[in-house]
Amino acid sequence: MDESLSKGYPWTKQPLVTCAPMRLITLAPLAVSVSQAGGIGFLGAGSDTSTLSSMLDETRNLLASSSSPPLATTDPDVLPIGIGFLLWGASLEQTLDAISKAGNIPAAIWLFAPREQSDLAEWSTSIRTATKNKTKIWIQVCSVAEALSAVDLADPDVLVIQGTDAGGHGASKGAGLITLIPEVMDAVRSSSSSSSSRSSAPQQKQPRQPAFIAAGGITDGRGLASALTLGCTGICLGTRYLASPEANISAGYRNAVLAASDGGTSTIRSGVYDTLRGTTDWPAGYGGRGVVNASYRDFEAGVDWEENKRRYEEALKGEGWDGEAARLTTYAGTGVGLIREVMSAGDITRQVREDGVRLLREAASRLVGL
Amino acid sequence: MDESLSKGYPWTKQPLVTCAPMRLITLAPLAVSVSQAGGIGFLGAGSDTSTLSSMLDETRNLLASSSSPPLATTDPDVLPIGIGFLLWGASLEQTLDAISKAGNIPAAIWLFAPREQSDLAEWSTSIRTATKNKTKIWIQVCSVAEALSAVDLADPDVLVIQGTDAGGHGASKGAGLITLIPEVMDAVRSSSSSSSSRSSAPQQKQPRQPAFIAAGGITDGRGLASALTLGCTGICLGTRYLASPEANISAGYRNAVLAASDGGTSTIRSGVYDTLRGTTDWPAGYGGRGVVNASYRDFEAGVDWEENKRRYEEALKGEGWDGEAARLTTYAGTGVGLIREVMSAGDITRQVREDGVRLLREAASRLVGL
Repeated sequence: MDESLSKGYPWTKQPLVTCAPMRLITLAPLAVSVSQAGGIGFLGAGSDTSTLSSMLDETRNLLASSSSPPLATTDPDVLPIGIGFLLWGASLEQTLDAISKAGNIPAAIWLFAPREQSDLAEWSTSIRTATKNKTKIWIQVCSVAEALSAVDLADPDVLVIQGTDAGGHGASKGAGLITLIPEVMDAVRSSSSSSSSRSSAPQQKQPRQPAFIAAGGITDGRGLASALTLGCTGICLGTRYLASPEANISAGYRNAVLAASDGGTSTIRSGVYDTLRGTTDWPAGYGGRGVVNASYRDFEAGVDWEENKRRYEEALKGEGWDGEAARLTTYAGTGVGLIREVMSAGDITRQVREDGVRLLREAASRLVGL
Repeated sequence: MDESLSKGYPWTKQPLVTCAPMRLITLAPLAVSVSQAGGIGFLGAGSDTSTLSSMLDETRNLLASSSSPPLATTDPDVLPIGIGFLLWGASLEQTLDAISKAGNIPAAIWLFAPREQSDLAEWSTSIRTATKNKTKIWIQVCSVAEALSAVDLADPDVLVIQGTDAGGHGASKGAGLITLIPEVMDAVRSSSSSSSSRSSAPQQKQPRQPAFIAAGGITDGRGLASALTLGCTGICLGTRYLASPEANISAGYRNAVLAASDGGTSTIRSGVYDTLRGTTDWPAGYGGRGVVNASYRDFEAGVDWEENKRRYEEALKGEGWDGEAARLTTYAGTGVGLIREVMSAGDITRQVREDGVRLLREAASRLVGL
């Protein structure tokens, strides 16, 4: 495993299992449960940082009131959790303010979806300065071009490589992890080694390589084992944690996740649900993957937006999740069909980690004699 | 590895590397080279079976004239290659006629894209009868529903699970292999075990499980290792073999494959190239993934079909592959950016197999201490 990364997170177990910072969904209970199980939970601060301070207060209280022993961090001021931001909406000022309070320094900051790539540099530098490098910078990328730009601009500790199977928001056009991870890793390595060979100072230290975390479609131990063979240090799960009691979603949403199957045909990435919910601020080039339901079918059938929105508003008052009439946003990845039961976030974290290790060993043991 | 499958193909080496039956591209030279390197080459008979007899003649001649020792098959009448069909266009009668000639029995038949699912049953039964079960039946599926239907109707020896990263034709809506393989495998196993438990005859033998082959985005040893951890017996490569001299494509097409990178953004699955080429017979629900070039950009910009076709025809007369002006169909998967050099089909087969084994072992060895 990547030792420099695990050294920075002494409470974690390897291989690293993390929880995606899902906006409005990954709040303190989910993030804390994942970290307490040896993973890293990311609070979904998203695009609205006005409540970040109180999210962090809740997180500290939850950690303090836990009957489990405190989680070891590299510094007493550092919280054993991360925070994820959607840069197109998040305020750097509010963020710096919130994480500067005593005991509020996150172990990781996860940056995604800047309006301009250069925002990645500003956020990274400001946060590193504010936390005296106690916070590691994670950047989520959806393509080779984004990865190279992020490495160049922000020298991230971690690149989260998001494949198109991911639930919720990601690049409208993208590749699955089986091609995206290898191509991103090759490109980043080759770019670092070429900057190194261009250097005229032979004693200059080798450019740093980020660690790689796989995100998008990974749902169980098989996905983890697969990501490890592709060269990643760990994984990020989003959709899988929707089926935990700690996820801040309604029972209807959770049941719709449990009910969906054949995720390649039952989910789709689009802008339809953003439009229906009035979330109009995402930069161009992103879409949210969710379960296809009546709202999407109406869109395809050419029902006009005003009427579709009216039906959506109506659904918000009632159930809106059930069967053929289901209409509410149900963001989920193509792995949704692999999710069949509700488990605690801690159990998910442990089970995926242990299954992944076991399955990778078993796959290697089947090679005996070759 | 899956022993029943490798026993049926005694000339192959494990883990199994196969070459996709690419229509007009995988002819005898490519198929034979792959089999001679210990894989299985599939002739791309596609939708036109009128030339199948002569393809098989050429294949037998190539095998006979080779300086390498003959490849061991289970029966002297069996050819160490497979044949792939697009059922919406292929003629079962012509096929039965061609493979009934002495020495023409293929080791495998690969069925894809039937007009009706029930065609899978007719083809499977007819071919098994005609070859006295010497030919194994491979069926390519793009979803869980297709997999269950194929198993139910045709009891295939092999399910080829095609993820949406694949180049060329596949389901318009689909998932990447990281979710599709596990969900298909779980569903097929659970469907077999429930038919078994419903049986009233306790001595009745356990329903047969197909072997699983991963296709779509696998490009190198990392992809192979990843597919093995997901539970597959082997893999199918398509796009990767485009960069072999044995692939029946123009230098322009091959160079366009070598030049493309960042496949999630530089390729797209659509019906645009089918329309421009006049290939209008595919059933609904399929699209071809290819490199985005001027033809696709014109389509997006709203250029009408007649004018776009005229430009396409014009491009056919000249180069049509170069730089910004490139306009001709360049089917390729999202792994296109991982393909950087031309290698012989035999070397590709051996290198991917050996790298896959090595990388899987290395990934497992990094778990030491966990």
